[in-house]
Amino acid sequence: MKLSQFFLPTLKEVPADAQVISHRLMLRAGMIHQTSAGIYAWLPLGYRVLKKIEDIVSREQDIIGCQKVILPTLQSADLWRKSGRYDGYGKEMLRIKDRHERDLLYSPTAEEVITDIFQSHIKSYKQLPQVLYQIHWKFRDEIRPRFGVMRGREFLMKDGYSFDLDYNAAKQTYERIYESYLRTFKEMDLTAIPVKADTGPIGGDLSHEFHVMAPTGESTIYYDAAFETLPDAARTFATMSNLYAAAEEMHDVAQCPIKGEQLKSSKGIEIGHIFYFGTKYSKALGAEVMGPDGKQMTVEMGSYGIGVGRLVAAIIEAHHDDAGILWPKSVAPFDIGLLNLKQGDAAVDALAEDLYTTLRSMNVDVLYDERDERAGTKFADMDLIGLPLQVIIGAKTIKEGLFEVKIRKSGERKMLSKEELFNFIKAN
Amino acid sequence: MKLSQFFLPTLKEVPADAQVISHRLMLRAGMIHQTSAGIYAWLPLGYRVLKKIEDIVSREQDIIGCQKVILPTLQSADLWRKSGRYDGYGKEMLRIKDRHERDLLYSPTAEEVITDIFQSHIKSYKQLPQVLYQIHWKFRDEIRPRFGVMRGREFLMKDGYSFDLDYNAAKQTYERIYESYLRTFKEMDLTAIPVKADTGPIGGDLSHEFHVMAPTGESTIYYDAAFETLPDAARTFATMSNLYAAAEEMHDVAQCPIKGEQLKSSKGIEIGHIFYFGTKYSKALGAEVMGPDGKQMTVEMGSYGIGVGRLVAAIIEAHHDDAGILWPKSVAPFDIGLLNLKQGDAAVDALAEDLYTTLRSMNVDVLYDERDERAGTKFADMDLIGLPLQVIIGAKTIKEGLFEVKIRKSGERKMLSKEELFNFIKAN
Repeated sequence: MKLSQFFLPTLKEVPADAQVISHRLMLRAGMIHQTSAGIYAWLPLGYRVLKKIEDIVSREQDIIGCQKVILPTLQSADLWRKSGRYDGYGKEMLRIKDRHERDLLYSPTAEEVITDIFQSHIKSYKQLPQVLYQIHWKFRDEIRPRFGVMRGREFLMKDGYSFDLDYNAAKQTYERIYESYLRTFKEMDLTAIPVKADTGPIGGDLSHEFHVMAPTGESTIYYDAAFETLPDAARTFATMSNLYAAAEEMHDVAQCPIKGEQLKSSKGIEIGHIFYFGTKYSKALGAEVMGPDGKQMTVEMGSYGIGVGRLVAAIIEAHHDDAGILWPKSVAPFDIGLLNLKQGDAAVDALAEDLYTTLRSMNVDVLYDERDERAGTKFADMDLIGLPLQVIIGAKTIKEGLFEVKIRKSGERKMLSKEELFNFIKAN
Repeated sequence: MKLSQFFLPTLKEVPADAQVISHRLMLRAGMIHQTSAGIYAWLPLGYRVLKKIEDIVSREQDIIGCQKVILPTLQSADLWRKSGRYDGYGKEMLRIKDRHERDLLYSPTAEEVITDIFQSHIKSYKQLPQVLYQIHWKFRDEIRPRFGVMRGREFLMKDGYSFDLDYNAAKQTYERIYESYLRTFKEMDLTAIPVKADTGPIGGDLSHEFHVMAPTGESTIYYDAAFETLPDAARTFATMSNLYAAAEEMHDVAQCPIKGEQLKSSKGIEIGHIFYFGTKYSKALGAEVMGPDGKQMTVEMGSYGIGVGRLVAAIIEAHHDDAGILWPKSVAPFDIGLLNLKQGDAAVDALAEDLYTTLRSMNVDVLYDERDERAGTKFADMDLIGLPLQVIIGAKTIKEGLFEVKIRKSGERKMLSKEELFNFIKAN
């Protein structure tokens, strides 16, 4: 993509009303545009990151056998009356009347709808387990939306729902998804700590929140210092759920088994939340299957959420410096930024254009800054939007035959021949 | 994917209330589930097709330089008051009040929001042209939703918006998108006829609808018989817009230049609609840029829609037989259906399992029917869901060492050795 044609409205000034760094950087990098309080459009750069995160989340879900669906954003109030949540949910639920005066609502979550679909179609234990998930827009009418997409009203979420025959099977599904969440976040260079959590309005017996530590987090978490030194291979449910970690509302100083310096606390950003709630919804909505002995059994359920839009902000909170964002490669909107510092010089233009074409033919995703702008503006914009690698071309490149490469995260610079450059790009 | 684990609720009976063939087949093949009047959940098989269509549409948009965004489903009424459409739109627009009693609406289209975003960020003619698009859910509160996803209330649509400096540039963009739409539909094995159309509530001077001919279409189109024999290379704007084609409301028998047998008519399914409307929205919302001469100019706009969910139904209307769907390869939910007719026979199971694993390692997307069901049920389900190729394994396969392959569309059957089978699959 050539930058002169790319819709990338970067801002030099820090937006006055944005309090947290991710919100400031997303506005400055032209990733989002607020259209109403707590409601954002995702512009091309932001959409690219959102899409990469969606794809990682989907792939990890598919690997463990979850199946993707799309549920309606607008749902009938009747189902929510059956589960008893329609009256209980409060003002965060956006209620709507259609032209025939029927009550609809904008889905804040989808336990009712998916349970109803399940009970319409699945009749035998032989078809279990089933985990269905979607990545779709939700609406919660927050009284004070804030921090950009971190606590918006319309937001993109992955929500999954599991159906098992009994407690043991449901517990296994819960553990499988718990571990897959750790891998999912790891792929985005996020280290998440799962903490025991309150089940809140979803209800149920067992629940974990996944938090990324960040000073801007809205919640406080308490955890065993051992989490910080745990090797990747030990990040299993069996190991991790034996270590103490709790959200503030579940943390009781008197009861806490961890004392002194072994007990750590941090602000955290919640990026995932999983629930096992047994038969709460399946009973209310009649989700039964025939068991192996021919008797009807009410299925055991759980639900599993990841804040997909919020992950974009959480990754920025975890990966940035004074100059801008430092995207992990897996979610970067482009692989490489190519800067032409001598736009208008025929030899330099030809060299840059040739490199751009060659890289594209190698399936490298390049953002080519060929604008008629000062070098300082080009450097500042490229640092701000945080692509992992920059290739800088100017008069010197022609003279010396060496390409300058800057690794955005470390700031390290290298002078490479054309062959070395291609090898370096392939390896990084 | 193993069928015993796949959420595929096929139906033997034809649903009584479904009138058109695509609606019947989508319900019978377990692709969709109605949750309210005109509102559907997309189940795993349906989602897979929807996703393939989305990807084709996106790729073709990206190729011609359009940039993908995501706009909010809920939009502020204020912007729509500025354009004058808030009061004019009627009851099809779903109007909502949030907890602070602010007027929102569920986007039926997005000219206002995108024009407002454009005018906030683009200030110079140097940044033109721009085409921004999204593939996102819309809501139109149809008084009588019908024909399944063909005329639903919540539906998935690609909507794009172009910004150009003057009429000539806008016309070129319009033609570029017109031709790209023909390629997009062609990739899904659909031959679309563009007809001059009324601009309706979007407004404007120039508009084409893209119709697939099908007896179940809601509209009637009149066209020059020459369309039917036009070679692919001649399917350009210049050639096609000179041939007569018009939707019923634009067709005037007295004025029509084509007579007799040269004039054809057909029922059509509208799958795309494009509009050039000049400065209708840019003027109302102040979308101006500085022109080459330093003067402010109001930008020229168009908008471009494809019914992505409706395409699933249109493809089925165009590609089915008495036994079920005949998916074109480009949108098929899986490449191959593998049928094990001797489930439980150790040798046959081992052979089928081995083939399944090998095909997956070749990145072939296989649906493996290893259910404990009669052969007749397996054949019927596989024909119904319409995967392009079936590989059938039974006792004979072991005895003779030959795999039976059925080409779903032609019904042709072949007996192939293992090596021939792999070569055949690679070539198809």
